[in-house]
Amino acid sequence: MDEEKGVEQTIEDSNTRFYKAFETLSIEKMEEAWKHSDDITCIHPGWEIFTSWTAIRESWLRIFENTKTIKFFITNMKIKAFENMAIVICLENIDTVIADKNSIRMGVIATNIFEKQNINNNKNNNEWLMVHHHGSTIANYMPPNVSL
Amino acid sequence: MDEEKGVEQTIEDSNTRFYKAFETLSIEKMEEAWKHSDDITCIHPGWEIFTSWTAIRESWLRIFENTKTIKFFITNMKIKAFENMAIVICLENIDTVIADKNSIRMGVIATNIFEKQNINNNKNNNEWLMVHHHGSTIANYMPPNVSL
Repeated sequence: MDEEKGVEQTIEDSNTRFYKAFETLSIEKMEEAWKHSDDITCIHPGWEIFTSWTAIRESWLRIFENTKTIKFFITNMKIKAFENMAIVICLENIDTVIADKNSIRMGVIATNIFEKQNINNNKNNNEWLMVHHHGSTIANYMPPNVSL
Repeated sequence: MDEEKGVEQTIEDSNTRFYKAFETLSIEKMEEAWKHSDDITCIHPGWEIFTSWTAIRESWLRIFENTKTIKFFITNMKIKAFENMAIVICLENIDTVIADKNSIRMGVIATNIFEKQNINNNKNNNEWLMVHHHGSTIANYMPPNVSL
């Protein structure tokens, strides 16, 4: 039981790391959250599928350049952990300022998939890295009654 | 190698079964494609997260009631197979008639997740059932030059 709880917490931490990287608009931090391989995939709301870390990194650079500030409040999180991979489904409650526009609030549902990395078979070095992100905007979004 | 190919084909078949069920607008066929449990999830384009088969079944009934015809042409498919679960990412090229409106073409990117069911440990009874579907519309979609 405890071990199971430990795995879920580690996966939640990897999910949090991804959103913290997004909030800081730092490509270095985003690099730490993702697996750098050719078969990873990313779907930003309304966009096409990006495949490979090279293409995905480029997409984050473009997003960061056009974002002044962004804050996430994550709710409705569901974690499904398997042996070497995990799925996190969550609602991103977003407060953002894009370019010179006013602050907007939006809701995005995300399917995030993480893969366990077995580095040197050393337990402390096992890391869950993002291999897939799928975000899509909710049409009739009602923001929660919290300040982000 | 052959066994790996076999698994991927079985997963692709499960993915096809889902889209065939959607095309026939048959709730019975859709029931066959999904796992019927409380922790499965479904995100239709622009909608909130539906959790549990009861809620997801209801959402399909609503969609089927409002759809006159729908045809899928699946492209850009990527399959990742793990021991007991598999991820299919694909582009749904859709030609649909909703209610009394004209035919529209749209592009939806899907993340589909399937879970292997071990029924009686009988190889022939192993089935990959859908446990998660996430669809999101592409904003600047260019339909392929094919008739659906």
